[in-house]
Formats: sequence, C-alpha cells, structure tokens
Amino acid sequence: MRKGLRLGVDLGGTSVKLALVDERGRLHDKIAVDTVKQPRALVKRLSEALRPWSNRSLLGTGVGVAGDVDTRKGVVRFSANLGWRRVALAGLFRKFKFPSPIVLDNDANAAAWGGYHLELGARPKSLITLTLGTGVGGGLVLDGELYRGVTGSAGEIGHLVVQDGGDPCACGNRGCLESYLGASAMVRWARAAYAKKKQVVEPLDPKILEQRALRRDPVAQEAYARAAQALGTALTSLVNLLNPDTILFTGGVARGATLFLPQALKILKSGAFKTPATAVRIVVARGKTDLGVAGAGLLVT
Amino acid sequence: MRKGLRLGVDLGGTSVKLALVDERGRLHDKIAVDTVKQPRALVKRLSEALRPWSNRSLLGTGVGVAGDVDTRKGVVRFSANLGWRRVALAGLFRKFKFPSPIVLDNDANAAAWGGYHLELGARPKSLITLTLGTGVGGGLVLDGELYRGVTGSAGEIGHLVVQDGGDPCACGNRGCLESYLGASAMVRWARAAYAKKKQVVEPLDPKILEQRALRRDPVAQEAYARAAQALGTALTSLVNLLNPDTILFTGGVARGATLFLPQALKILKSGAFKTPATAVRIVVARGKTDLGVAGAGLLVT
Repeated sequence: MRKGLRLGVDLGGTSVKLALVDERGRLHDKIAVDTVKQPRALVKRLSEALRPWSNRSLLGTGVGVAGDVDTRKGVVRFSANLGWRRVALAGLFRKFKFPSPIVLDNDANAAAWGGYHLELGARPKSLITLTLGTGVGGGLVLDGELYRGVTGSAGEIGHLVVQDGGDPCACGNRGCLESYLGASAMVRWARAAYAKKKQVVEPLDPKILEQRALRRDPVAQEAYARAAQALGTALTSLVNLLNPDTILFTGGVARGATLFLPQALKILKSGAFKTPATAVRIVVARGKTDLGVAGAGLLVT
Repeated sequence: MRKGLRLGVDLGGTSVKLALVDERGRLHDKIAVDTVKQPRALVKRLSEALRPWSNRSLLGTGVGVAGDVDTRKGVVRFSANLGWRRVALAGLFRKFKFPSPIVLDNDANAAAWGGYHLELGARPKSLITLTLGTGVGGGLVLDGELYRGVTGSAGEIGHLVVQDGGDPCACGNRGCLESYLGASAMVRWARAAYAKKKQVVEPLDPKILEQRALRRDPVAQEAYARAAQALGTALTSLVNLLNPDTILFTGGVARGATLFLPQALKILKSGAFKTPATAVRIVVARGKTDLGVAGAGLLVT
C-alpha cells in the first residue's frame, strides 16, 4: 500500500460518503452528500463537494457502490438501491477529473477490504466479512487478496441457501440467509407474527425490535432465534467450504450481536468439521471507523 | 510447472495408485497396490513397488490422501477410510527415500488440481470441482491457485448445508449436500423407500440404482430427483458466493449426470443471481485420465 492520501467514496442509495483515506485506512477528512439518482448529476455534485480538497495531492479514487459492479470495466451493471442499469461510472468520474486511477467495486467488497486492514490487528490469511444491515452483505479476502470472482459478483453471503424451499427472499429465491437475518427480514417476520397474535406493535423498526428482544418479548426473541439459526447454518457451510481464519461482523445489526451470535456459534461448533471450526476466530467490528469509505479508499493500492 | 516426471500417489482406503506424471499431467507409467493400514508398512510396500522406476530421475513426490491433511506439516490429521489419526506421512516418505520435495494434500484437492490442468482446455480463472462417488468431494482453484484454507481443510462441498435440519449426514450434521447426493446417500434412501413399499430389491448398489432410474423405476427416479434438488441448491450457493467461471464434475456418479444434472442446472439458473449464473460453465469430466493420481503428481510444481 503506497503512502499518502486517496479519495474514498461510499455510494449508497440515500447518501454518499467521501473521505480522505491514508495508507493505513485512517480518515483525515470526511463529507456526506445526499444521493441524486441521475448518474451524471450525482458525479457532478460530488465533484463540487470535493472543492475544499482541490489542493490536496491524491493517489487515486476508490468507489464502493451498492450493486452489481464490473470492476474491470468500471461499470455498475445493476443497482436496486440507485435504480441503475449499465452505468459506466468510472468513465463519469474520469470526465469530472477525479484523481486517477479510479477503482470501482461493490460496497460490501470495499467494507471487507476495510475490515481486513482496520479491524484485525495481525492480518488474517483468509477473512470472511458479513455486513449486517437491512440485508446481509458479504466480502471475501482469500490468501490476502480481495476475491471478486470472474464477473466481480463473488461474496453474496446473504444469498447462501440455508433452507431449500424456505422463506421467500428479495432476490427471487427462497431460503437464503437474508430471508431470515437482517433488519428487513426480521421486521417483516415479526410484523406478521404480531398480526397473527392480533397484537398491535406500531411503529416497528429494527431498533424497536432489538429493544423488545432485550426485554424478552417472545415474538422479537423468536425473530432473533430464527436469524441465529440461519446464521449458524450459513457459518457451518462457509467454514466447511472456505476454512477461513477469521469471520468479521460489521454493520448496524451486528451491534446487537449478543442477541444472536452465541446461538449461531453453537450451531457452527456442532455442525462444522472440527479442525476448521476450531481454527476460526469470530470478531465483531468495534465500529469506530466507517469501513465502507475507508475500504473504498484502500482499493487504491 | 517444471518439465519432467514426478511421482504421483493417490492413497485411498482400498488401493494406492502410483504413476509417473509429466508437467502436462500425462501418465507415463502406472502401478496399483493394495492398501495396508499400518502407515510404516504401507510406505515400505510402496517403496518396494517403485523399484522398477528406480533409475528414473524424478522432480518430487505428490501424495493425495483421503482425509484431513495438514499440508504445511505433511501430517494426516485424520482419515476415516484409512483409520488414521495424526500420521506424519511426509516424514515416512522421506525415511523411505522417495523423491523430494514431498507434497501432501487431500485427495479431493489433488483431483481438483488434476481437473484444472487436464480437463478444461483454456485454464479457468476460478474452478470448483465436485467429485461424486460414495460421497461428494470438493476442491477449489481460485484465481489460478489451489485454495486450501488456513488449516488445509477448505473445499468440503459435500458439507454445504442445503436443508437446515434435513437428512442426517455421516459427518454428524444434518441436511448436507452429501446427505442427498452420492452413492451412499442415494442407495440408503432408496433401500428405505423400497422397504416402505414392501418391495424387495436386492442386491442394491449404485450401478443397479442407476439402471433402475434409467428404466423409470419410481423410487430410483425419486432418489435422483432428491439428489438433483440438493445439488441445484448447493450450486446456487456456490455461484452466489464464489462466482466461478467453471464447475467441473468428476467421479463415478458424475457419469450418470444425465439423470440429475439438467434438473440441478435449472434450479441454479432460476435461483442464483443472473450475472454469475450466466458466466459459469458446467463441465463433466471425460474421465479418460485418472485425475486423482495425475493431480497428485502435479502438486510438485
């Protein structure tokens, strides 16, 4: 990793974070801008937001985008959050004279890369990152390299199938990890469960669900138990398949880890092969640094 | 891969195959020896079997073992087939003056490495190999390198969980791919299904089950349908997670691929994300070369 500052951009559906990131992933300055969905207008707005940094010498621009990204071509193939299809985003960044090289990647990959550099002290050999928020994002760092797969689509841990024919998932399939774990699935399930009991719990959001679970509300506890069961099953598959030394949890839902992680780890320990299950270390991110924008910056190596 | 011959050893529970393997994986000569379970006696017997090749100059010895192998230390941690626990096998090979370096690996990894070099014309970037025999073996070649994980335990594709709480598996868990796919699971399930129908079908073995399925016997067809469903689910997870360009099927059960692969691929195409599902190529090994022993030899790079 070269010494010096690079620009990190974390491009989400509601806001864009920009930061100056050094070679160790530390943020030296930070701005947030509301997302505009028209790509050209968005990049123009970002370039204006950068003006205060215009006299800084930067090593390049790393961009994490919520969506399916072709890293090699610098194209966002599809983003549900942004409503984009085939947007040549790296080209737009070049047009608006962002520091080059411009490296585009999926936001979960960027966060995994950030976690790899910032959260773990000694570098793991192989790291699996799960980002638990609305859904379940994933990123793989294997043998010290960000693993992207052949079309840059790798790491969709939220769409490991844990229950063939199980609950419907937003992706169109059934029984994915994300059908059980993540704010969206858990709130949806709890809402239906309350309705079945003719119990009115409104408003209901992830924060409220978490508080209810902590106060031992049975429906909320069951939502977390289902999530823990699915997570334990997915971790078993991941450990048997990839034999990582570290699994890192990040994201908002991960902060409520005490509600589901112990149960999930019990399932992992009893379900996976002994050698890899013993070798893996489980870490919940301290959450001090914004891994998404830091990791995006570190994409410029 | 250096030019020249290396010794390949495929060490299974009933027989050991030895071959002289060139840099392209071609077998120049081949011997098979019955397995002796006492490690020292076995290696002694192998060294005697090698005498006809004693005047050949060899680049090293690559050994694939059915079991949990510590590649770095050259130790077989555990092998159910051989009844071994903590056998320092590489040391024994050294003691009996086998050509060095001596490289030890899991037999499924060796077969995956053989498939990577021998079955695919242009080298894939990332390859997943499934070896369908008694059970389901797996091996991963990611970004052109054999991926072993942190303790050499990676690639246990047979123990991806496809159905949380599903059929019991020999590994002690439930709902693994191998609980549904592979000669052992399929014959066991069919035997129970025939018994339930008070139908006597003896003897019943994988070959007979395959023939019955081809003749549209409903129980045999259902055994294959269950296997196809589990395989399709596992492939969906693998493609979403690893986004490989190629998935290669090898092994005895793979030869009956027409009975289950089309259905499994339909599930994959409808279940996985479109970009990685479109990018992946599915190949059934032609089965001309013994990938296990060829791949073992090629472990000496």
